[in-house]
Amino acid sequence: MEIQKELESRILEIEEMLKKYLPEEEGYQKTVLEAMNYSILAGGKRLRPMLMLETYRMFGGDSRIIEPFAAAIEMIHTYSLVHDDLPAMDNDEYRRGKKTTHAVYGEAMGILAGDALLNYAYETAAKAFSMEPENRSIGEAFQVLTEKAGIYGMVGGQTADVESEGETEISKEKLMFIYRLKTGALLEASVRIGAILAKASAEEQKIVEEAAQDAGLAFQIQDDILDVTGSFEKLGKPIGSDAKNQKTTYLSMEGLEKAREEAERLSKRAVERMEALSGTNPFLPELLRYFTHREK
Amino acid sequence: MEIQKELESRILEIEEMLKKYLPEEEGYQKTVLEAMNYSILAGGKRLRPMLMLETYRMFGGDSRIIEPFAAAIEMIHTYSLVHDDLPAMDNDEYRRGKKTTHAVYGEAMGILAGDALLNYAYETAAKAFSMEPENRSIGEAFQVLTEKAGIYGMVGGQTADVESEGETEISKEKLMFIYRLKTGALLEASVRIGAILAKASAEEQKIVEEAAQDAGLAFQIQDDILDVTGSFEKLGKPIGSDAKNQKTTYLSMEGLEKAREEAERLSKRAVERMEALSGTNPFLPELLRYFTHREK
Repeated sequence: MEIQKELESRILEIEEMLKKYLPEEEGYQKTVLEAMNYSILAGGKRLRPMLMLETYRMFGGDSRIIEPFAAAIEMIHTYSLVHDDLPAMDNDEYRRGKKTTHAVYGEAMGILAGDALLNYAYETAAKAFSMEPENRSIGEAFQVLTEKAGIYGMVGGQTADVESEGETEISKEKLMFIYRLKTGALLEASVRIGAILAKASAEEQKIVEEAAQDAGLAFQIQDDILDVTGSFEKLGKPIGSDAKNQKTTYLSMEGLEKAREEAERLSKRAVERMEALSGTNPFLPELLRYFTHREK
Repeated sequence: MEIQKELESRILEIEEMLKKYLPEEEGYQKTVLEAMNYSILAGGKRLRPMLMLETYRMFGGDSRIIEPFAAAIEMIHTYSLVHDDLPAMDNDEYRRGKKTTHAVYGEAMGILAGDALLNYAYETAAKAFSMEPENRSIGEAFQVLTEKAGIYGMVGGQTADVESEGETEISKEKLMFIYRLKTGALLEASVRIGAILAKASAEEQKIVEEAAQDAGLAFQIQDDILDVTGSFEKLGKPIGSDAKNQKTTYLSMEGLEKAREEAERLSKRAVERMEALSGTNPFLPELLRYFTHREK
């Protein structure tokens, strides 16, 4: 399977879907709406909505109810990047080869656009209640989404990451906590919500969540590797930034060879788990495999 | 009715309830949890949860289902203050006589604590789905909460406000837009959600929302008035800041006398609307009246 081509066509589909859920740029609050849309449409691999949609389909889901949730998780991911890039945080001027939101719209609007995206994610997901008022899975999906994005999920990981910047020695346990929450939590949410809305069993939900957790860790370790072995052209951002910032990563802790081995081990386990469920549709296992075989 | 005494006892009740919904300060993400709790427990009039709880009771609501929503709306209000106070926004070091969140925990943690509070608000409200899985009003309440807090509500008003800071002339229409959204939207959400969860009719929901809208505008005009006629001791913040910042307010546009008249007119209309519904319980109309008769 030519995963790269498959990915590209699915990214286009997802971006068409996303656009339907973006706000019109009008009214006295127009600037924040422009900044939100700029942030969302600045590209990206769309892995989270892709995982969610594919998991939903794998379990036989066939309603449009998944769309507001798929749009929502991309908005949450995007808000986290917008706030990460702020001067008081990572102070990044470029992401994916484009100016970051605050670099274009100013710092105040960067803060507000992130806030607006986070809130609009839930506003968008809440549209599902009108689509299928009798569907009790929507409330459950909402609980997973809010939990995985929050202090026991993504924001928790982000906080531990920001805090550990000043520290010279970080335990492996803490590093794994950061990786699992900061990157992994939204990936886990994606497959869980796809499974919940498709009425998968609790056991099936557990299997896809574990697969996403492994793949998420592998993804993060691959990020560390690409920061050493990648190029600006492919990544759209400067390489060597971890070393420059004296950031503790899995790679700096264990070395390149061990990092590659570990990413491979986790990736393999994730793919095997997913293959046991995916039957004849190879895309979802391929997608998880791609997490560690990507070059950007 | 001695509204001040009534208020104080209800504030204590609400703060006890709020504490039940705050996170434990533990784990690698401990700092953000401390910053969240610091922000929430730094005081305040608790008007939004109070309005919500009272409206719920007025319409005969008697379940604990209202609590997660009452806690959530206070968290949303608090996150908006934490982000408003940031250096890139209003750059305020004090609020209610206490150091602001970023002044205590640093700018990065101020951003993260605001994000965490907004997300935790929805995570908290989503607990209602587990409490009463069959209750379809919860989804509806969620829709109202997300909408009123977002780009067509509070964040929309906040954006227009930030943007108009550089402008020398602001239209009255725009100023009213800012007041209605920035302050009004969450007050409207409070009474609407109280009404929805108590199964009030659409007509009743409309009446309480209009009353909250009027009272909210009156509240904001009273804010302008207190910035001229108040004192640091009572307000816990410097007065005269609007004039100093050359900020266009209802008062700067229309003068003190007209501002007082307008606040009085709106307040009266709000109270009358609420009295038509509240029957023998005078607290809710008194609370709306207090919006324009407060000294802080």
